[in-house]
Amino acid sequence: MIEEKLAQLGLTLPQLPVSKGIYKSCLVDGKHLYLSGHVSVNSDGSYITGKLGKDLDEAQGQIAARQCGLAMLASIKNHLGDLDNVKRVIKILGMVNATPEYDKHPLVINGCSELFVQLWGDDNGKGVRSAVGMGSLPANVAVEIEAIFELH
Amino acid sequence: MIEEKLAQLGLTLPQLPVSKGIYKSCLVDGKHLYLSGHVSVNSDGSYITGKLGKDLDEAQGQIAARQCGLAMLASIKNHLGDLDNVKRVIKILGMVNATPEYDKHPLVINGCSELFVQLWGDDNGKGVRSAVGMGSLPANVAVEIEAIFELH
Amino acid sequence: MIEEKLAQLGLTLPQLPVSKGIYKSCLVDGKHLYLSGHVSVNSDGSYITGKLGKDLDEAQGQIAARQCGLAMLASIKNHLGDLDNVKRVIKILGMVNATPEYDKHPLVINGCSELFVQLWGDDNGKGVRSAVGMGSLPANVAVEIEAIFELH
Repeated sequence: MIEEKLAQLGLTLPQLPVSKGIYKSCLVDGKHLYLSGHVSVNSDGSYITGKLGKDLDEAQGQIAARQCGLAMLASIKNHLGDLDNVKRVIKILGMVNATPEYDKHPLVINGCSELFVQLWGDDNGKGVRSAVGMGSLPANVAVEIEAIFELH
Repeated sequence: MIEEKLAQLGLTLPQLPVSKGIYKSCLVDGKHLYLSGHVSVNSDGSYITGKLGKDLDEAQGQIAARQCGLAMLASIKNHLGDLDNVKRVIKILGMVNATPEYDKHPLVINGCSELFVQLWGDDNGKGVRSAVGMGSLPANVAVEIEAIFELH
Repeated sequence: MIEEKLAQLGLTLPQLPVSKGIYKSCLVDGKHLYLSGHVSVNSDGSYITGKLGKDLDEAQGQIAARQCGLAMLASIKNHLGDLDNVKRVIKILGMVNATPEYDKHPLVINGCSELFVQLWGDDNGKGVRSAVGMGSLPANVAVEIEAIFELH
């Protein structure tokens, strides 16, 4: 069902970049699914880079945040086989690569939050959230988001 | 009882700013209460802004951190109706808007931690904590804090 | 067994700096062990300071990250008495003190992740992870890492 909704929205899951780190992309602990920080990638797995407040505007930042969300879905599909096992969003931490003066992080991270509401609805698609500005991010990616979901 | 303690301390819960993001301010998952990043607001809901190391000193930063804690209490009261449902602090992530040279983040975040100890005591009021420096924060707020509590 | 592995690796647990903050270094909640942000310290408890991208190179950053991991182990030993109570890593948040241009945070945090894999193996030693760049950190430490572990 989630895959059908993605198709209706005209969205595709990105290719996952080869991880160079020593970690799991996702981990199941009881009813909870933990997701590593997923960075902003294009459909082909190349990075979306740049700082908000200098290189990218809000619309570009929102796309970057949405792509973080789609990258998480690709990891979940890889790991669980089925996106329909996810019940709801518990928590996301949205980290925006930004200049010291930047102040619109929530608008950027909405790009991911809107996707989750489109997929899981207004209640289950919304978790708690922080949307904050990082001094720097790996490979100069625009956005990195980590999450905790609840499984059925 | 928590409300009485607040009154004894001469503290009032701030008005919550209208959220522009797509998230829940707090979310219950079993015995755990997750709180979104709550930003530093005055009693009237206006933002306490500025960077530590440039615009604000430690005393001002501590008040900003305490106001984040009070804003969380306002969200909990809104959501649960009763602040006495909280049993203890599990974890807080204290995020300070700071210059690259700033190095006194723990002192600032103590403003929130001291409040929680005043309300829930030396054991239950203390959780694990990180107190760190962000490159930027939404609306240039001075402090943003997210938390996990345990409920009775 | 974990202590024997540490000895075989030639590693010693650092002296824990006296905490000036109002928090617990670690906290048990059911099967979960939460660790506060632990900063990069030398064996004698003195801080490893400086920014990646300016003051420290990747090799130095990796040692700093490993020392954060060892500091966590020292806290766990202090609190639980026995390092063998830890079953697996659930999640780490690796925070690197870095210049705005820095882009190799995952390499740095690998210093901690490699230690955990050496101690708990390729499956249990790997959790989910974010490795990100902070604008500033307390006492200008190079790295700060917080974690959640699962207990036996």
